[in-house]
Amino acid sequence: MTGLMSPEQLEAALRDIGEERYHHKHPFQLELNSGGLNKAQIQAWALNRYYYQCRIPIKDAAILSRMENADLRREWRQRILDHDGISDDEGGLRRWIALTDGLGLDREMVESTDLVLPATKFAVEAYVLFVRERTLLEAIASSLTELFSPLAIGARVQGMLANYDFITAETLAYFEKRPPQATRDSNFALSYVKEHANTVERQQAVLNSLIFKCSVLWAQLDALYHAYVAPGHIPPGAFDPARDVS
Amino acid sequence: MTGLMSPEQLEAALRDIGEERYHHKHPFQLELNSGGLNKAQIQAWALNRYYYQCRIPIKDAAILSRMENADLRREWRQRILDHDGISDDEGGLRRWIALTDGLGLDREMVESTDLVLPATKFAVEAYVLFVRERTLLEAIASSLTELFSPLAIGARVQGMLANYDFITAETLAYFEKRPPQATRDSNFALSYVKEHANTVERQQAVLNSLIFKCSVLWAQLDALYHAYVAPGHIPPGAFDPARDVS
Repeated sequence: MTGLMSPEQLEAALRDIGEERYHHKHPFQLELNSGGLNKAQIQAWALNRYYYQCRIPIKDAAILSRMENADLRREWRQRILDHDGISDDEGGLRRWIALTDGLGLDREMVESTDLVLPATKFAVEAYVLFVRERTLLEAIASSLTELFSPLAIGARVQGMLANYDFITAETLAYFEKRPPQATRDSNFALSYVKEHANTVERQQAVLNSLIFKCSVLWAQLDALYHAYVAPGHIPPGAFDPARDVS
Repeated sequence: MTGLMSPEQLEAALRDIGEERYHHKHPFQLELNSGGLNKAQIQAWALNRYYYQCRIPIKDAAILSRMENADLRREWRQRILDHDGISDDEGGLRRWIALTDGLGLDREMVESTDLVLPATKFAVEAYVLFVRERTLLEAIASSLTELFSPLAIGARVQGMLANYDFITAETLAYFEKRPPQATRDSNFALSYVKEHANTVERQQAVLNSLIFKCSVLWAQLDALYHAYVAPGHIPPGAFDPARDVS
């Protein structure tokens, strides 16, 4: 990164980061897709990932609150509508609950987030803080992991349906809706970033924002792997499948 | 916790939390003490723990900035003096650098914090945010892990000197100075908490603050264990002993 990149070069550099650091390559994700996990491990994943899901509209509201331009706000608010829905029985967050319901997790326990791994909370809250404290350009750039999610979701849904008899298309309804939303959202964010990252410093900040966000996702799977796969050291107070599922 | 506890009952409840959740019981710590780690793993520990150390005076300054009372500030500022010293060649942070120096880590690399595990940064920043956003009572209560550190440090120094030939008393100078400081500081914080946690809600908040802080320390060792002990999955971009030590 010694000089100013063209918008196309910047996009290529962002895609390189995704190829290297997006969590589609994480061992937990690979085992999830290939049938290598048991039900308790998938419960732990869905429970912890719920914490990420429930902070997404809060993160997007923080970004929205920093946008001076109404056109921009009209575009960005769609993310919040998608996640929260029109009423309590729809939207992305509700579809995530369909997954935790389908996995036999108590809804009140899930929604309390009391048994989520502390490391999950630390990573997710770092993301919320990032979009509050960094520039708007960096906040928008940190959403660019969505560029890589449709492909990852495709592999995940196919793998989970093929490999786990307790997984049905209904429990995976969240993932059915996401790819077109993610594509629309990330195309918009990518255009914004390519237009506004017009200095060397801003381009570097944009790349660092995507690296940061990849580390937020990666760290969540590291924590799950450590607690529930190998060596299986569940931290004090966190979800214990042997104790917390009736 | 159904009713108001006496100050002595509150102290006992705090000590119970430490017994159960303080990181002296973490597998990484136990292996560190007993000689079960290799030099590269201890390098990773010292490098990552440097990030915690370098945020401690920032955390204490945030607490100081919220104290309206000059007596209280005079008491609390001692922590910052201890950590930062009178000049660049002394103080707790400098003594931590003596440890990373002694382990053969490049000082510039350590001080950049570029190769620290993202999970370490997320946990430590969660602690800094906690003392900024919660009540002063909760911020002070979160420091009470220091009640348990003198005993843990004793076991650590004895174990490390006995079990690793690359560890000397000089490299462990940090730990020699800490126990009397920690005892003085935690006695003050404990008195403050016992006096001011005078409602059921405040007592519960104090207990939760200590639980939170224990999880900050525990999560750091979880991340180290996952990356450098078993299964040894180093996240993209983090310290790799095979690459980053000359």
